[in-house]
Amino acid sequence: MSRSADALPTAMDLLAQLEAGAPNKVRANLDAFHPDTAELVLGWSFADVVGRDGIDLKTREMLTVAMLAAMGTAPGQLDFHMRAAMNTGVTREEIVEIVLQVAVYAGVPACMNAITSAKKAFAAVD
Amino acid sequence: MSRSADALPTAMDLLAQLEAGAPNKVRANLDAFHPDTAELVLGWSFADVVGRDGIDLKTREMLTVAMLAAMGTAPGQLDFHMRAAMNTGVTREEIVEIVLQVAVYAGVPACMNAITSAKKAFAAVD
Amino acid sequence: MSRSADALPTAMDLLAQLEAGAPNKVRANLDAFHPDTAELVLGWSFADVVGRDGIDLKTREMLTVAMLAAMGTAPGQLDFHMRAAMNTGVTREEIVEIVLQVAVYAGVPACMNAITSAKKAFAAVD
Amino acid sequence: MSRSADALPTAMDLLAQLEAGAPNKVRANLDAFHPDTAELVLGWSFADVVGRDGIDLKTREMLTVAMLAAMGTAPGQLDFHMRAAMNTGVTREEIVEIVLQVAVYAGVPACMNAITSAKKAFAAVD
Amino acid sequence: MSRSADALPTAMDLLAQLEAGAPNKVRANLDAFHPDTAELVLGWSFADVVGRDGIDLKTREMLTVAMLAAMGTAPGQLDFHMRAAMNTGVTREEIVEIVLQVAVYAGVPACMNAITSAKKAFAAVD
Amino acid sequence: MSRSADALPTAMDLLAQLEAGAPNKVRANLDAFHPDTAELVLGWSFADVVGRDGIDLKTREMLTVAMLAAMGTAPGQLDFHMRAAMNTGVTREEIVEIVLQVAVYAGVPACMNAITSAKKAFAAVD
Repeated sequence: MSRSADALPTAMDLLAQLEAGAPNKVRANLDAFHPDTAELVLGWSFADVVGRDGIDLKTREMLTVAMLAAMGTAPGQLDFHMRAAMNTGVTREEIVEIVLQVAVYAGVPACMNAITSAKKAFAAVD
Repeated sequence: MSRSADALPTAMDLLAQLEAGAPNKVRANLDAFHPDTAELVLGWSFADVVGRDGIDLKTREMLTVAMLAAMGTAPGQLDFHMRAAMNTGVTREEIVEIVLQVAVYAGVPACMNAITSAKKAFAAVD
Repeated sequence: MSRSADALPTAMDLLAQLEAGAPNKVRANLDAFHPDTAELVLGWSFADVVGRDGIDLKTREMLTVAMLAAMGTAPGQLDFHMRAAMNTGVTREEIVEIVLQVAVYAGVPACMNAITSAKKAFAAVD
Repeated sequence: MSRSADALPTAMDLLAQLEAGAPNKVRANLDAFHPDTAELVLGWSFADVVGRDGIDLKTREMLTVAMLAAMGTAPGQLDFHMRAAMNTGVTREEIVEIVLQVAVYAGVPACMNAITSAKKAFAAVD
Repeated sequence: MSRSADALPTAMDLLAQLEAGAPNKVRANLDAFHPDTAELVLGWSFADVVGRDGIDLKTREMLTVAMLAAMGTAPGQLDFHMRAAMNTGVTREEIVEIVLQVAVYAGVPACMNAITSAKKAFAAVD
Repeated sequence: MSRSADALPTAMDLLAQLEAGAPNKVRANLDAFHPDTAELVLGWSFADVVGRDGIDLKTREMLTVAMLAAMGTAPGQLDFHMRAAMNTGVTREEIVEIVLQVAVYAGVPACMNAITSAKKAFAAVD
């Protein structure tokens, strides 16, 4: 089977790699909504999919930043994954390149929003 | 300066790495629209941005596939970049992982469309 | 004919069902932009379309919440319709289910934004 | 726990309710991509989320049709869920109302695309 | 009042300016869906909104082409409005400029799709 | 050649027409991200594309406002271009018409967001 019944601990471990302190914070946010949410959403996202082998976590965060910046509909999540990208080893130079590439595929306004988000991550991780 | 006045030859070289035969085909398509288009659009996209150092071309194609699949508004371009990804060294296993990650960030229908596109690329590159 | 020339009073009545106090507030906002806006936009939206028979208002609000959460481009309107959904009889349990279903069709970030919006509505309607 | 390790049989049962013959067809399509896909994508979508209690399947299909029509990025999936909606008890009158409501929240072109899709479903289910 | 109860004849007149033969074709398509659709959708779109004074029809079609190309979710409607733009006096040179500007604000893939659509309109109107 | 190697001065001149004081502010923002950004992004956007002949700057700003309002993913840029539109000669009446037309092609929530943005521009330019 490609997934486990109790994926939450694995998901929490991955989330801790994205940002120290995130597991408790995200978990509390989701539990206050509905007790099934953490397992359904985080368990699936992080244990079943993002935690899979085949692409390393750093490259996955590069993909996530690119997708969120291109879609432009979740600025808070883009901020989080800009920091998570840096926490998993994506360099500033690489973030600059991703953000410029967003301009090509999703337009300059999407790039400008990503610049704002990247600068917040640069300041936060310093 | 971060860009050259005559970026088109550099862009055509990069496009040839994405798919053999693409430069002439894409160029003819754009020239039939307006003679400035190739230089303005391809020169900027491929010579000024995608051709930059800092991220290798294989990783850039992974980012492009993820963005196009997540946005879902350019199925023809997604088909092209699925093939281009494979032509620049992205493995089938990596494409599978990208496509599954699209489900997390852009939803299952976006993932299903990307599966269709990936399968066409798998068949074409065989 | 499927619409009336003077749809505004009907639209205002429906808007009052969505949230007490909304008609005056929304009307003042639109009138300050241009005097035709209320009739053109609200009259059409609420009297001509949403006010139609065939689907009850509660179910229509469930549809509206799902669409706004999936599109992700109007967070303020999503907040309003989360409250409106509850005001027209959508239960918290039903909102939880809609929000989880958004993850399937529009991705986890859209779901996370909808969770934030739903929690504000839960607190506001308490 | 809110999900089971082996969700695929449950998901296939739900998919059969959406359209007779769909489970084998969809499963074959996904298995030809990667053997984990069916369980990861369908198991999660249909067993873990859409198969939950709290909203009946007919109403869930109304929500899905509205979301897909509003997003406008997965026309093939919209066609499928238009038929699935009818197969789970959504009436033509209700589909008409959903499609008109899409015009309000996502614009007239989204509505026009949904009309095309709905008409195909009306003809297919006849 | 900013709208009339029976807007359909006015809408049909405007639609005829966009493309000869369109009123009958579009009307038949909508009537086959539901008899209220033409008045609700076309009456509002074309008589109440697009038919208003304040911006001439040619400029309105330029705006419509830009919006549809930037959103990228209604390729059939983009094809129609490319032709409609030319029929209301937008020149090929102006369409080229709009399409290039789409690249800046919505990305190169949106521009490429618009080029395909524009070339069809150029051929059709010849 | 359709573009110059050193497009930045031309781009800065155009940006100054959009809003007095914008060049220094935008430039400082981009330079703090990466020194190549201004030339790559602004040089291309404003010198190579938006600064082209064929459509006057006022009409281009109308197109930009319509696209940004329809996409709904860059509210800060929409605010800027609402003011820029007025600074390049777009009248309040014309902005009202654009904003209403957005409702037709992108839906009422997109229109409502554009109303909020337009009212801020009306107040700022007064």
